Amino acid sequence: MIQVIKIGGGVLENEAQREAFLRQFAALEGPKVLVHGGGRLATTMAERLGVETQMIDGRRVTDKETLDIVTMVYGGLVNKQVVAQLQTMGVNAIGLTGVDGGWMKSVKRPIKNGIDYGYVGDVIEVNGAHLRKLLDNGLTPVIAPITYSAEGLLLNTNADTVASETAVGLVESRKLNVEGREANVQLTFCFEKAGVLRDADDESTLIPRITRESYKQLLADGIVSGGMIPKIDNAFAAIEHGVQSVRITYANNLQGGTVIEQA
Amino acid sequence: MIQVIKIGGGVLENEAQREAFLRQFAALEGPKVLVHGGGRLATTMAERLGVETQMIDGRRVTDKETLDIVTMVYGGLVNKQVVAQLQTMGVNAIGLTGVDGGWMKSVKRPIKNGIDYGYVGDVIEVNGAHLRKLLDNGLTPVIAPITYSAEGLLLNTNADTVASETAVGLVESRKLNVEGREANVQLTFCFEKAGVLRDADDESTLIPRITRESYKQLLADGIVSGGMIPKIDNAFAAIEHGVQSVRITYANNLQGGTVIEQA
Repeated sequence: MIQVIKIGGGVLENEAQREAFLRQFAALEGPKVLVHGGGRLATTMAERLGVETQMIDGRRVTDKETLDIVTMVYGGLVNKQVVAQLQTMGVNAIGLTGVDGGWMKSVKRPIKNGIDYGYVGDVIEVNGAHLRKLLDNGLTPVIAPITYSAEGLLLNTNADTVASETAVGLVESRKLNVEGREANVQLTFCFEKAGVLRDADDESTLIPRITRESYKQLLADGIVSGGMIPKIDNAFAAIEHGVQSVRITYANNLQGGTVIEQA
Repeated sequence: MIQVIKIGGGVLENEAQREAFLRQFAALEGPKVLVHGGGRLATTMAERLGVETQMIDGRRVTDKETLDIVTMVYGGLVNKQVVAQLQTMGVNAIGLTGVDGGWMKSVKRPIKNGIDYGYVGDVIEVNGAHLRKLLDNGLTPVIAPITYSAEGLLLNTNADTVASETAVGLVESRKLNVEGREANVQLTFCFEKAGVLRDADDESTLIPRITRESYKQLLADGIVSGGMIPKIDNAFAAIEHGVQSVRITYANNLQGGTVIEQA
């Protein structure tokens, strides 16, 4: 099994939480990939540089200056700090963005309904075989959510999407190879809650497992709503493309949380 | 032959010069590695952030904030922009610092004669085999001059040194392999002049070739002096470790300039 773990910027900003999370990640057996966001660090840097951060529907609008900041903070600072810390834990990590090895291509998101997200990329092509080669060489990719276009534009990309696309890319690269490969890809989203909860304020109401069937019911009952819906839809999309299961859990509980699977 | 080319930050800051240089680099045949500085961009960013840049003997003193800036600007912004541009030119570039794949380790430079350079690394270990594997997979490493210590500290490292150590590391990794490998490593330093000149103000006095023997004479005659001496000493040190030749030339003339070789 190959594990793809997505961690948000919040956990990485807190030194103690970061260390605890990375120790858990380091202890995971088998080939693995870490996808990270950068979160507030980019916003903080933008503020220090006097660049205004504009958000639409929780997504950053990325003008040229913001793109440079995101590239610096996510692709440079956060990425290399995480890689260095993993190296001290015995993980042979290698930092990547989508442009490194040209493995995750995107298009600049078109203006739609008058909304221009700026230098934001929608993923169109993933070369999972590139990651496979790195994994086969004993390396652990640590991925910052920046992709690039055919014109050579760097593009800010949603970290959840990068994680899903990475997992799916690894599944698809599997088809090119026959033997000696880990068969399954598992995707984990670290989350600010214990997982999917029946009652958002009560952790004891964690739903340990969601299938296509039970999801329909949860939607119908209004138990899953709001921002949770795109997250779970995204999970099922990954499963549709061959990812074995998707886990949503606390960063400090990589074996727990809610597991989403086909059936 | 594997070519290791070092380009300074100055050329990369100028869009037209960068494009021209990268086109030349892209056109080089065979396996190749690019090592870049970041130059004034880090200084500019430090100014914008209100962080003072202190220099001793032309080397930046790297406090924690400056280290973060260098990591962001060299390891993030400059590195990924260069990689993206090379990708559009058909070069399958991959951006790296020394920590990515753990291939270039250093120690924090000890305080000496009361001078503390801060988070500056002196290289102690190079895993050339890591770069070899990437080269063997058709990738072109683009290296930002940041290394790391056993304690997981990121360390700002002189880009000329990173280039020499890279070249030497590739030579040494060669010894581990027997067949099908490119035999020689050539190192090129891009420079603000045409090469080593007899008269620093007259390009027609370019010295096309320097050997151990002729270098002695050039030193004795005072033709090579000042900042040129450590550059050439550094070149001979690389040659001592098996690098075939070292070239010093304009960024726009990768086949020209001064070639330094054993004899």
